[in-house]
Amino acid sequence: MILLTRRATFSASHYYWNPAWSEERNREVFGRCANRNGHGHNYTLEVTVTGAIDGVSGFVVDLKWLKDLIEEQVLSVYDHRHLNHEVPEFAKLIPTTENIAVSVWKRLEAPVAAAGGAKLSRVRVYETPDIFADYSGETD
Amino acid sequence: MILLTRRATFSASHYYWNPAWSEERNREVFGRCANRNGHGHNYTLEVTVTGAIDGVSGFVVDLKWLKDLIEEQVLSVYDHRHLNHEVPEFAKLIPTTENIAVSVWKRLEAPVAAAGGAKLSRVRVYETPDIFADYSGETD
Amino acid sequence: MILLTRRATFSASHYYWNPAWSEERNREVFGRCANRNGHGHNYTLEVTVTGAIDGVSGFVVDLKWLKDLIEEQVLSVYDHRHLNHEVPEFAKLIPTTENIAVSVWKRLEAPVAAAGGAKLSRVRVYETPDIFADYSGETD
Amino acid sequence: MILLTRRATFSASHYYWNPAWSEERNREVFGRCANRNGHGHNYTLEVTVTGAIDGVSGFVVDLKWLKDLIEEQVLSVYDHRHLNHEVPEFAKLIPTTENIAVSVWKRLEAPVAAAGGAKLSRVRVYETPDIFADYSGETD
Amino acid sequence: MILLTRRATFSASHYYWNPAWSEERNREVFGRCANRNGHGHNYTLEVTVTGAIDGVSGFVVDLKWLKDLIEEQVLSVYDHRHLNHEVPEFAKLIPTTENIAVSVWKRLEAPVAAAGGAKLSRVRVYETPDIFADYSGETD
Amino acid sequence: MILLTRRATFSASHYYWNPAWSEERNREVFGRCANRNGHGHNYTLEVTVTGAIDGVSGFVVDLKWLKDLIEEQVLSVYDHRHLNHEVPEFAKLIPTTENIAVSVWKRLEAPVAAAGGAKLSRVRVYETPDIFADYSGETD
Repeated sequence: MILLTRRATFSASHYYWNPAWSEERNREVFGRCANRNGHGHNYTLEVTVTGAIDGVSGFVVDLKWLKDLIEEQVLSVYDHRHLNHEVPEFAKLIPTTENIAVSVWKRLEAPVAAAGGAKLSRVRVYETPDIFADYSGETD
Repeated sequence: MILLTRRATFSASHYYWNPAWSEERNREVFGRCANRNGHGHNYTLEVTVTGAIDGVSGFVVDLKWLKDLIEEQVLSVYDHRHLNHEVPEFAKLIPTTENIAVSVWKRLEAPVAAAGGAKLSRVRVYETPDIFADYSGETD
Repeated sequence: MILLTRRATFSASHYYWNPAWSEERNREVFGRCANRNGHGHNYTLEVTVTGAIDGVSGFVVDLKWLKDLIEEQVLSVYDHRHLNHEVPEFAKLIPTTENIAVSVWKRLEAPVAAAGGAKLSRVRVYETPDIFADYSGETD
Repeated sequence: MILLTRRATFSASHYYWNPAWSEERNREVFGRCANRNGHGHNYTLEVTVTGAIDGVSGFVVDLKWLKDLIEEQVLSVYDHRHLNHEVPEFAKLIPTTENIAVSVWKRLEAPVAAAGGAKLSRVRVYETPDIFADYSGETD
Repeated sequence: MILLTRRATFSASHYYWNPAWSEERNREVFGRCANRNGHGHNYTLEVTVTGAIDGVSGFVVDLKWLKDLIEEQVLSVYDHRHLNHEVPEFAKLIPTTENIAVSVWKRLEAPVAAAGGAKLSRVRVYETPDIFADYSGETD
Repeated sequence: MILLTRRATFSASHYYWNPAWSEERNREVFGRCANRNGHGHNYTLEVTVTGAIDGVSGFVVDLKWLKDLIEEQVLSVYDHRHLNHEVPEFAKLIPTTENIAVSVWKRLEAPVAAAGGAKLSRVRVYETPDIFADYSGETD
C-alpha cells in the first residue's frame, strides 16, 4: 500500500451566508466570515492517490499528469476566483473548508479512476496553515 | 468521512525524571532531558474531529467553538507553564510527547462528544518540527 | 542597533483594476488579478521596530503592546475584508503587495513613534509565501 | 494506539532512466528527470513507529535510538550520495519517491522489530515540499 | 524605498572539487561534498528588486515579468541540471551557495536594469532551509 | 558584499522577573512570562557572517567550522538549559529575545574575527515563528 501526494495552491475569495437566515443569524453563526464583500485565502490542496508501483517506471501515477489534472479540474476553476459567485458547486453550497474538500474530491475521483492503475485516496484542503479538512470519499 | 483539524500552539517547560531511579540512571535514559531545571519547547497541537457536514452551515463543527474549547481545556492549563510542576496529570506522569498527546486527548474527548454531532478523531503533538506523536484513543 | 519583529496574519480579498483603462487593458496588465469578483490571500505581516533595549525590562518595546497596536491599527481594518471595497486607502489605490506595505507603514509609524523609545523600522507584507514587499519609510 | 514520528533529512542526486528504452522514450516518460548527469533534492523523511507507551519512561521508543537507527540504516547510505550510482537498491530500481519510501521501509522494518516493543508503522518521503509518498508495508 | 521579492525553486546536483588539489586535500576541505558522483538540493531563490511604485499600476515591477525573467535567465539553465557539468559558470567555479548567489546576480542584474524602472537589490539562495547566502552586488 | 548564514536551534526554559519589583509589578509588566516555574521555547538562531569569497574554496567561511563554533559557543551552553538559572549572562539580565540576540553576538563576535577572513554581521533569534530580534553589533 503506497500513497502518493501532490500539493497545489490556489488563491480565492469566499464568504459564508445562508439566504434562509436573517442577517443577524448569519452574523451570529458565521461571524466575520459573513461579510458579503468576501475575504480570501491562499488555499493549499493535497491530492493523494493510491495504487501499485509500476515496475517499469517506478511510478504510482505520473506526477506531471497528476499536476495537469489538478490544474485542469480544480485550479483553472477555483484559482483567482470568488468561490461563491464563480464556481458552480458553491452557488448554493457554503464554501467551508469541509465542503471544498468534498468538492475537490468529486472533481478528481472519476478522472483519476478513468486513467486506470490508481484511485483517489484523500483530498486535504488547508484554508490557513492552522485549519484543514480531509475527505476520503463516502465508503472509505 | 470528513476530518476537520485545528492547529494551536503553546510554550511550556518540562524535564524527564523518574524518582525511583538514581540520578545516574536518569541521565543514562533521559540524557539532556533529565536536567531538573527544565528546558522548554514551542509545542504545536493538531486537534482533529470527525462527523457529518451540517447541510445548513457547511460545518462539521464550528471552528471558533473548537478553538475556544482547546483554549479552555488545554492552552489555559499548559501554555507558559512548567508541565511537571503545574499541570496535574504530569505530577507523576513523565511529560513526553507521547504522554502529552494522550493527555490532550483525555481533556478533549468528552467535551467534543458532549457537544454532539462530532467526535474527537486524533490528537497530534509536535515537540519540535522533527518530533511528533499521534493518539487516536484506545479503541480507534 | 537592535531590531524586534512581530508577525501577524490577515485574510482578505482584493482585485487589481484601473478605472481609467478599458477592460482589455486591465486584463492585459493585471491578468487574473483583474477579476472584479475578487480573489483573496492569507497575508503575513512582519512589523519591525528599532530602539534601545530597556535596561530594566529587557524590552525594545512590549510585544503585547505591539501586538495590540497591529490589531487595532491594521488587522481590525484589513482582516476578513475586501480591501478595495472596505479599506479607505484602497478606494483609489490598487492594493498590490507594495501598496499594502506602504499603507501598513503609514498606519503604524506615528503610533509607534508616539509611544516613545522606539521607531518603526520596516514593514514586510507577504501576499503568498513566494511574494513579499518591504517598506522602510521615505528617508531610510 | 499511539504513533511516534521522527523526521530526518538527506541531500542526494538521482535521475530516472530505463535502460530497456530508447533515449527518446526515456525523455518522453521521464521528462527533465531523464537527464543522466543527475539532479538532486533535499529529501525529508518521516519515520513513524507504533507500540505501547512504556509506563516507566513514557516512551514508545527512545527517540535518540530511533535517530541513530535512521542515521545508521538510511542517512549514512543515502546522504550526499548519487542514489543511482551509490545506493545498492537503486542499481536497477528507479529512485522515484515511491521506491525510496519502500526502500527506507525495508531498511528499517527489521531493526525496529528486533528492538522489541514497537514496530514500524509508516515511512513518508518528501522529494520536495510539494511531492511525497507514504508506505506502510505490504499487509498494513 | 520599497523592495519587492519573488521566490523560486530549482533542484540541481553539484559537488565541490578543486582539481589542483589531491583527493585527500579535497576530502579534508570539502568533506562529503567532495563525492564526485554529486549530490543535490532543492534550492530556493529569492530575487529582490527596488524602485519606485508606479502610480498607475501599483507595481514596482510586474511580478509575472519577473517570474518569467527568473525562469528564462536562471531556472531554464539550473533546474534539473548538474551544476558542475552543465552550467557554464561552474565549469571552473565551485558551486557553493555563495558562488551560486553571485552567479544568479550576474544573470539578472543587466536584464532587470534594461527593463527600466527598477534595479536588482539582492539575491538570496537557500541550499537547505538552514544555509543561505545573500549577494547585493559589488558596490552595495 | 556577500553574507552567509547558518541556522541552528536550541530548546530552553526562561522566565521574566525583575527582583527589584513586587510580584504585582512583575505580573503587570511581564504577564504570563513572569511565572517563576519557567516556560520554554524552541529557539531558532540565524548567524550571518560577511567577507570575501575565497577564490580557491568558494567559501566565505567553512560552514562546518561555523556550525561547530555555534555548537561550542552557544548551543552547548543554552540548549536544554534553563536560561535564568544556568546561563551566566542571564543571572541578572532578563532573557528576552532582544537580550538573547545580543548575548549570542557577544559569544560569537570575537571567535569569528579571530578565525580571520570574515566577521560577524548579524544574529537573529526567533523565540517563536512570530517573534524575532536582530542584532548587528554596536557600530553597525
